[in-house]
Amino acid sequence: MMNLINRFCLAILFILLSCSLSTCASKLNPDKPCKRLVLYYHDILFNGTDLSNATSAKITNDTALGFHFGMMVVFDDPLTKDNRLLSPPVGRAQGFYFYDRKTTYNAWFAYTLIFNSSDYKGTLNIMGADPLPEKTRDLSVVGGTGDFFMARGIATFKTDDFQGDYYFRLKMDIKLYECYK
Amino acid sequence: MMNLINRFCLAILFILLSCSLSTCASKLNPDKPCKRLVLYYHDILFNGTDLSNATSAKITNDTALGFHFGMMVVFDDPLTKDNRLLSPPVGRAQGFYFYDRKTTYNAWFAYTLIFNSSDYKGTLNIMGADPLPEKTRDLSVVGGTGDFFMARGIATFKTDDFQGDYYFRLKMDIKLYECYK
Amino acid sequence: MMNLINRFCLAILFILLSCSLSTCASKLNPDKPCKRLVLYYHDILFNGTDLSNATSAKITNDTALGFHFGMMVVFDDPLTKDNRLLSPPVGRAQGFYFYDRKTTYNAWFAYTLIFNSSDYKGTLNIMGADPLPEKTRDLSVVGGTGDFFMARGIATFKTDDFQGDYYFRLKMDIKLYECYK
Repeated sequence: MMNLINRFCLAILFILLSCSLSTCASKLNPDKPCKRLVLYYHDILFNGTDLSNATSAKITNDTALGFHFGMMVVFDDPLTKDNRLLSPPVGRAQGFYFYDRKTTYNAWFAYTLIFNSSDYKGTLNIMGADPLPEKTRDLSVVGGTGDFFMARGIATFKTDDFQGDYYFRLKMDIKLYECYK
Repeated sequence: MMNLINRFCLAILFILLSCSLSTCASKLNPDKPCKRLVLYYHDILFNGTDLSNATSAKITNDTALGFHFGMMVVFDDPLTKDNRLLSPPVGRAQGFYFYDRKTTYNAWFAYTLIFNSSDYKGTLNIMGADPLPEKTRDLSVVGGTGDFFMARGIATFKTDDFQGDYYFRLKMDIKLYECYK
Repeated sequence: MMNLINRFCLAILFILLSCSLSTCASKLNPDKPCKRLVLYYHDILFNGTDLSNATSAKITNDTALGFHFGMMVVFDDPLTKDNRLLSPPVGRAQGFYFYDRKTTYNAWFAYTLIFNSSDYKGTLNIMGADPLPEKTRDLSVVGGTGDFFMARGIATFKTDDFQGDYYFRLKMDIKLYECYK
């Protein structure tokens, strides 16, 4: 009887021990997000005439430094599940970006993903650099609300299309590593 | 004697086990913040003449997209414990907001709450969307310093007053779910 | 034999118990970052003529509120390990700041530290207030990517040099308290 209890006791101890160690050492694994969303972001910059289609507008002008350095854009862009602009939006991305490099196109984003559908209700807040020449770029998901209460993670950008200055499309691969709902 | 030790051992094991499980499953509960602050934020936009009262100023103009789309405002606004503008401020909110929607008034905020009183010394950093037509809006508290070292949480906005373009008041219900001090 | 197992069992239990308690109570200690980087940030504001040296440019003008209130600057600034501008950069800081106070110089920053060297590859995202009259100022490190996957922490600013409007240098003491790599 004693022996049995002792063995049981030891078994649980080893489970706890291995569990604790794995938690402390690195509780987050880049390959194992607790939630993942792949979304396409469509930005149609106001060109002075296409008021009905435009989803974003320039609020400051280029400086003399080149490559649109200093041009800031405010956006309210649709998010779709596939890469077609006219697919039904599953959310909006609201925020801003600006260009900030003299030698190449390089941007910086801060924005909120807003969901209000049967799938999700809530927001994710994201910020970070977007060095366009890189094939993929990682930004930080710094918080969330609603169904994404207190979430954190990584948003990986990939340029999916670029048509001059007035339309571009990003594939946003949102991987959350802290989920509380 | 043996029996006693075994029982003690088992008792602690079950405590640890239940404790570990509750921690892993969902350590954060939206209804149980570890700290809560309710503050009123007063924004008096510079109208060209009221220099002494103004607490904020427009730095970019409206675009053609409507509803102030693209207008950005930098602010250094007082925070009070009740909704009276002239109550002694308990802190400042410093940052910016801009309007970003064509079809309604919709804003986006990023700012810092700064406390330097006997109650609190430190800062909280906040960002997120502010869709004005919603009765309440949730933003993310993404970090903190000083007495709010490494804090995270949710800031819930509620419009408390709105007098044209030049004065509005928000009730900010700050709920922290990660507290380390 | 039994006795030995029991003692072993108890020993491990106490280790686990003390470990769990310390973790739960306050797992983060301001004096014990899990990683620390001290970097110097050099900002050379475009003055209209020094195009080759400039690392930043004004995108909005001062308002009437004084102390550069409302002036916003976009930057792509070099980071060095010591305080010499011409030391080899170990990374870049890309983002923006603006001035936001009527009574003194007071700024607000949001930016990304970008590393792409043999030491580190990845980014850190930072935001917060920068009240210049204070000897040191704490901002929040709200996220990270690459070698700084999911990191959080505090960035402490100290003005290291200030030459009029066109050059200043900050010592950035980056202390991370959440490290997962």
